[in-house]
Amino acid sequence: MRMTQFLKRRAGPRQRVYFDSDDVVACIVTCGGLCPGLNTVIREIVCGLSYMYGVKKILGIEGGYRGFYARNTIDLDLKTVNDIHKRGGTILGTSRGGHDTTKIVDSIQDRGINQVYIIGGDGSQKGAAAIFEEIRRRGLKVAVAGIPKTIDNDIPIIDRSFGFDTAVEEAQRAINAAHVEATSFENGIGLVKLMGRYSGFIAMYATLASRDVDCCLIPESPFFLESKGGLFEFIGKRLKENGHMVIVIAEGAGQDLLSESNEQSTTLKDASGNKLLQDVGLWISQRIKDHFAKKMTLNLKYIDPTYMIRAVPSNASDNVCCTLLAQSAVHGVMAGYNGFTVGLVNGRHTYIPFYRITEKQNKVVITDRMWARLLSSTNQPSFMKHDDIHEPNHSGGEAGAMNW
Amino acid sequence: MRMTQFLKRRAGPRQRVYFDSDDVVACIVTCGGLCPGLNTVIREIVCGLSYMYGVKKILGIEGGYRGFYARNTIDLDLKTVNDIHKRGGTILGTSRGGHDTTKIVDSIQDRGINQVYIIGGDGSQKGAAAIFEEIRRRGLKVAVAGIPKTIDNDIPIIDRSFGFDTAVEEAQRAINAAHVEATSFENGIGLVKLMGRYSGFIAMYATLASRDVDCCLIPESPFFLESKGGLFEFIGKRLKENGHMVIVIAEGAGQDLLSESNEQSTTLKDASGNKLLQDVGLWISQRIKDHFAKKMTLNLKYIDPTYMIRAVPSNASDNVCCTLLAQSAVHGVMAGYNGFTVGLVNGRHTYIPFYRITEKQNKVVITDRMWARLLSSTNQPSFMKHDDIHEPNHSGGEAGAMNW
Amino acid sequence: MRMTQFLKRRAGPRQRVYFDSDDVVACIVTCGGLCPGLNTVIREIVCGLSYMYGVKKILGIEGGYRGFYARNTIDLDLKTVNDIHKRGGTILGTSRGGHDTTKIVDSIQDRGINQVYIIGGDGSQKGAAAIFEEIRRRGLKVAVAGIPKTIDNDIPIIDRSFGFDTAVEEAQRAINAAHVEATSFENGIGLVKLMGRYSGFIAMYATLASRDVDCCLIPESPFFLESKGGLFEFIGKRLKENGHMVIVIAEGAGQDLLSESNEQSTTLKDASGNKLLQDVGLWISQRIKDHFAKKMTLNLKYIDPTYMIRAVPSNASDNVCCTLLAQSAVHGVMAGYNGFTVGLVNGRHTYIPFYRITEKQNKVVITDRMWARLLSSTNQPSFMKHDDIHEPNHSGGEAGAMNW
Amino acid sequence: MRMTQFLKRRAGPRQRVYFDSDDVVACIVTCGGLCPGLNTVIREIVCGLSYMYGVKKILGIEGGYRGFYARNTIDLDLKTVNDIHKRGGTILGTSRGGHDTTKIVDSIQDRGINQVYIIGGDGSQKGAAAIFEEIRRRGLKVAVAGIPKTIDNDIPIIDRSFGFDTAVEEAQRAINAAHVEATSFENGIGLVKLMGRYSGFIAMYATLASRDVDCCLIPESPFFLESKGGLFEFIGKRLKENGHMVIVIAEGAGQDLLSESNEQSTTLKDASGNKLLQDVGLWISQRIKDHFAKKMTLNLKYIDPTYMIRAVPSNASDNVCCTLLAQSAVHGVMAGYNGFTVGLVNGRHTYIPFYRITEKQNKVVITDRMWARLLSSTNQPSFMKHDDIHEPNHSGGEAGAMNW
Repeated sequence: MRMTQFLKRRAGPRQRVYFDSDDVVACIVTCGGLCPGLNTVIREIVCGLSYMYGVKKILGIEGGYRGFYARNTIDLDLKTVNDIHKRGGTILGTSRGGHDTTKIVDSIQDRGINQVYIIGGDGSQKGAAAIFEEIRRRGLKVAVAGIPKTIDNDIPIIDRSFGFDTAVEEAQRAINAAHVEATSFENGIGLVKLMGRYSGFIAMYATLASRDVDCCLIPESPFFLESKGGLFEFIGKRLKENGHMVIVIAEGAGQDLLSESNEQSTTLKDASGNKLLQDVGLWISQRIKDHFAKKMTLNLKYIDPTYMIRAVPSNASDNVCCTLLAQSAVHGVMAGYNGFTVGLVNGRHTYIPFYRITEKQNKVVITDRMWARLLSSTNQPSFMKHDDIHEPNHSGGEAGAMNW
Repeated sequence: MRMTQFLKRRAGPRQRVYFDSDDVVACIVTCGGLCPGLNTVIREIVCGLSYMYGVKKILGIEGGYRGFYARNTIDLDLKTVNDIHKRGGTILGTSRGGHDTTKIVDSIQDRGINQVYIIGGDGSQKGAAAIFEEIRRRGLKVAVAGIPKTIDNDIPIIDRSFGFDTAVEEAQRAINAAHVEATSFENGIGLVKLMGRYSGFIAMYATLASRDVDCCLIPESPFFLESKGGLFEFIGKRLKENGHMVIVIAEGAGQDLLSESNEQSTTLKDASGNKLLQDVGLWISQRIKDHFAKKMTLNLKYIDPTYMIRAVPSNASDNVCCTLLAQSAVHGVMAGYNGFTVGLVNGRHTYIPFYRITEKQNKVVITDRMWARLLSSTNQPSFMKHDDIHEPNHSGGEAGAMNW
Repeated sequence: MRMTQFLKRRAGPRQRVYFDSDDVVACIVTCGGLCPGLNTVIREIVCGLSYMYGVKKILGIEGGYRGFYARNTIDLDLKTVNDIHKRGGTILGTSRGGHDTTKIVDSIQDRGINQVYIIGGDGSQKGAAAIFEEIRRRGLKVAVAGIPKTIDNDIPIIDRSFGFDTAVEEAQRAINAAHVEATSFENGIGLVKLMGRYSGFIAMYATLASRDVDCCLIPESPFFLESKGGLFEFIGKRLKENGHMVIVIAEGAGQDLLSESNEQSTTLKDASGNKLLQDVGLWISQRIKDHFAKKMTLNLKYIDPTYMIRAVPSNASDNVCCTLLAQSAVHGVMAGYNGFTVGLVNGRHTYIPFYRITEKQNKVVITDRMWARLLSSTNQPSFMKHDDIHEPNHSGGEAGAMNW
Repeated sequence: MRMTQFLKRRAGPRQRVYFDSDDVVACIVTCGGLCPGLNTVIREIVCGLSYMYGVKKILGIEGGYRGFYARNTIDLDLKTVNDIHKRGGTILGTSRGGHDTTKIVDSIQDRGINQVYIIGGDGSQKGAAAIFEEIRRRGLKVAVAGIPKTIDNDIPIIDRSFGFDTAVEEAQRAINAAHVEATSFENGIGLVKLMGRYSGFIAMYATLASRDVDCCLIPESPFFLESKGGLFEFIGKRLKENGHMVIVIAEGAGQDLLSESNEQSTTLKDASGNKLLQDVGLWISQRIKDHFAKKMTLNLKYIDPTYMIRAVPSNASDNVCCTLLAQSAVHGVMAGYNGFTVGLVNGRHTYIPFYRITEKQNKVVITDRMWARLLSSTNQPSFMKHDDIHEPNHSGGEAGAMNW
């Protein structure tokens, strides 16, 4: 049997086709939170199977993994998916959790499905790996392919995940609004919370793109509020200089500070197994207001654009990205590869074994250039307590220290 | 002295000009919350005075009424204001409150200002009236004109206030996001809070424009949560039928229900004298979640787009509106009218005495056609406790009952 | 028989219903060029009939009037039309001409249709009137209702036609681009052609909204190119003052000048009977370039955004407008009115006999305030050859001359 | 003297600084056509010099290279450039040609300029190389750095040029409009001309992003109109299958066909030395109409969005790109590098000698995967006359032939 799991291979159509088009019963499922581009990926898997390989039987599993246990599925064809890439969300519906490997593989067998396309994040890709193992254990001829989904761009190995570019673009609206509010009021502060549970990529790129942000706080770069060199001092200074400021905070930033005040919250998890975070935006807004309450009249406006960002359709760049991922997955499966996820690795579309993308998370490296560029753009302090890294200054001297 | 207050006159340039252009020292001030179009109004007052009348001295008062006490003002000319209508907010800055009539008129005298243009809401127009009275009392030759500002469209007499159309347009983004979130999850509810402290115009028009809203709650139409005919029953029913729903709620809706649970909050007021409202969106989200907690898994997403709406630049329609208001104000002042506010009344630009627009607030009349149209669009119940108005049904019979 | 044609009545649901819902076979047809909002009108007729009256049989006639002769129709229901208001164009397809009254009424009889909703412009409403007459002649119990469509807003009596507001909004993109091009090059001219065959409403409102336009040319206001007071002189002057300028021209402007150079073109007509116009934008661009060729280096950029404007989905304001028109039409037909078109007249939704909206066209009245406001905004000359109206100047003196 | 030209070095701040901030007199010039992001690059050079190095004297040269001969320059500082990245075009103005090396270097000497930042395309970078040679010849201590600008993304070596991503995004509007027009009329064809004089990158990516395009024509892939396997045959086939189609054509596509009919046009060049191309969009529209005139009623709509695309502000992704390029250039110059252009090479910001980016042009390689992906997306024929490459088919067999 040629169907095989493998380390890392360049994606693309192959000379020999493993499946006979007439025998293919494919299914597509979307899992986890929303991300711009889900519908484009669905559409392009359907188009790829139909146009390129003449596959006629494609099922949509509704509502995430638990849709495998439901009675009904949706028939997907070129007509059904024709316009869906212009809509946000997922036409299949999605959910967190609901993963019972045995029941899912039973359902796959019962329905005669032999190709399974799973679009989902970290947790869902682990689920895909489990499904693949169970299928192998039962000796079924069923291909399992993953298309990694994370709006946070925190999947390791791959260059970029779909939806991220759209999210950064859409975040500009919120930052613009924060900037307008901040500049229109005395001591105006616009505070925007952006996605990023464990990694600050959206916050970092949205900040670099906007040019209006005075301070960007991400999970990878610890900060503190009070005392010299802390956030409050910086806010006071920037307000004094400019009269206003814009702060961007990733949802996972400052969780250590939050949990200090609120210990019991750290153990809660959502249905996908993600740690439930307290709303850092609300928390830090209150802390800032409290701190300055007696010093000056602040006008702080807090904006949480999360749902408005993740619900938009993907932009042009992400549409191309989604298309190539979907085509890669289809080519791989049709050629007999199995148990893989697709991704752009060093500019090449590649097949990657599941475990490689679930074993760890990608993070902003704060000693790297990109973060240094952000610091020199915002001119914000590094919030290092022991001052081992110097603040950016005008002589360019910090460059050496950072070993660029 | 021809300078005069009057009941209601059609706006427009007049044959005789009361001010000599070279003597004019005009000032512009923006007060209260942000509203799309503020910068367009500022720009067009400046352009009107400069282009049409050759006025050379125009001052911008910074940061609302309290800017009158500040040392500095901004010089405004054609170049300064050239591009400002493409930006949200107000280049002059704004604030709530800060109104000390005596100090303001002192400042007007000290600076030799003889034309005062006040862009602001209800409270600010009352302030304008007080300034006008004080100026008259002192016998000064200073014209005071108001340009009424309310994103809520709740100023009486006038057909429409600037910024409202933009707000309704921009609200569509939030409603779309709510719709996408709702339809992508099982028992998905998208809940959007929109502006509307005392009136539900934005919520009503945004609902009518969207076609995706299942329920619109406004201050003028009381509702209740529990028991037969209440909101919870309707939510349960709609979720059962469609699997998802979108709710739009005006910020001032259901305040009676809120204050029942939280009595002390009702007496707080902000610096402009507006009653401080609890966030009805957060409150109702929690109540809905609590109610259904044991019955089903809800996926409720709450979106508060307020700051993202009010910070955008005005759209084309509002730009025209702002331009005509500003030109009317300038023509009126230059012709010697005084103590008036400008507005579109029955399709005509009109000069209106201050008191006429501050004596009461415009509200959605729920026995009128527009609300009936909304009800027949959303098919939502009327939430009347004693059932004296029947729900819309398919026979059209309700029409008679509503006396259309 | 209560079914009746009438002069002008306020629209809205009636107490008694003329049709039994179960007997209704309704059809909808869209005719003529594209206009933002067509799909919203289609959607809301379907929703109105289904939700409000329980009608189950609604047919879409494809491709305009000639679709009546085709074999197939589309079944329309709530599901089919659910999302169509978010797309531009018309899901039914459209065409010009193709009107054979006898064949159309034959088709209506053959299919058992008893409600005909016709969305179309001037020519199509005349067609609707002819269909209505033929139906009456044959003594059929078939209602005919028109929803007037004109992106140009040139239908008489009614306050505003759907799609116009969206068109003005979308035109801002083209004007912005023209402005950017003009200001980025030496002697830059950005020239934008907008819709407006016989009336300049889009050009006028787009100019008033943009604030970046130096000159607006419309069919109602004749102009000339050469000699004192002409367009070339004005262009030379404005370029000298500002270094750049933006010109907006309605497609029907300057047709007298065009036909002078090109006599034979005036007799051609398109399938709807509209006079085929030469592209005034290309023509005037060439004339301007030729005139200045030896005097200076011009950088003229010509933008024709017509198709990009008319293909967008309707904005919020037009969505409300379309909804109310569709609901009015449905209420009127269900109540037994016949042979009417719906429209907003003095702020009220009204039923209007066909002939009233086809007998003439609405035009910009250049002695009215709105055009005067435009002139004072752009500061352009009136291009009157005999100088009977003075150019706007800085003393405000023109106001009297214009009899405001 | 450490100032040096070099082959290719990683960009970034250096430990030692070559210029004393107080001595720096920098100038910035923008040359050639508009491209989204010009203002962001200008802004970030100013911010980089000011914030990071404390430079106080920065001049803007107006109107391209010829601005060096003008009397005036613009003073650029943080305040001047604060908001310019939100506007399209270039605040400095631009022009083609006007390059007189001697006069420019004279002007540089006269003004005491010691840092020259040149933002421009292929021709302008050659100009920058000439200026650098002349400066070296005269033994002046003046640094020259280029920031390559090409909306077409056709500069060799570098991964991506700024503005390209925005252009692809903005092109979607035109393609959407073409799609709406095409689907709303019988035998509707929407034809969109996009930028791409010698390379089809914008057309290719815009096609891949849109998913609505049936045929993409680029300069690199020759095609023919008549006879078997030609464009007309394909159009006829697609119209018969779907009733409508969308064609995207790069401005440089089919120039061989055009010049056959019109020989003399091939020798004209614009002021930058670019070959003047006939409008291929107008030409091919006419050819298509003529061909089908007797066969069927076509509804062809031609859209040329060129100016509307290039005049928009850069999107988030390009803003980041512009920022990094500008910062790289500033760091390089401050560190003493000279005679280089900046660019992203294999994901790293790099200093590149001028000649490397002007010696040839980047082109779509039609035997590469990306073009194959496009072909499998549009399902268009390869238009190869001798059929040495097979059309994509449903068996996937073409993959081997294409040597993926």
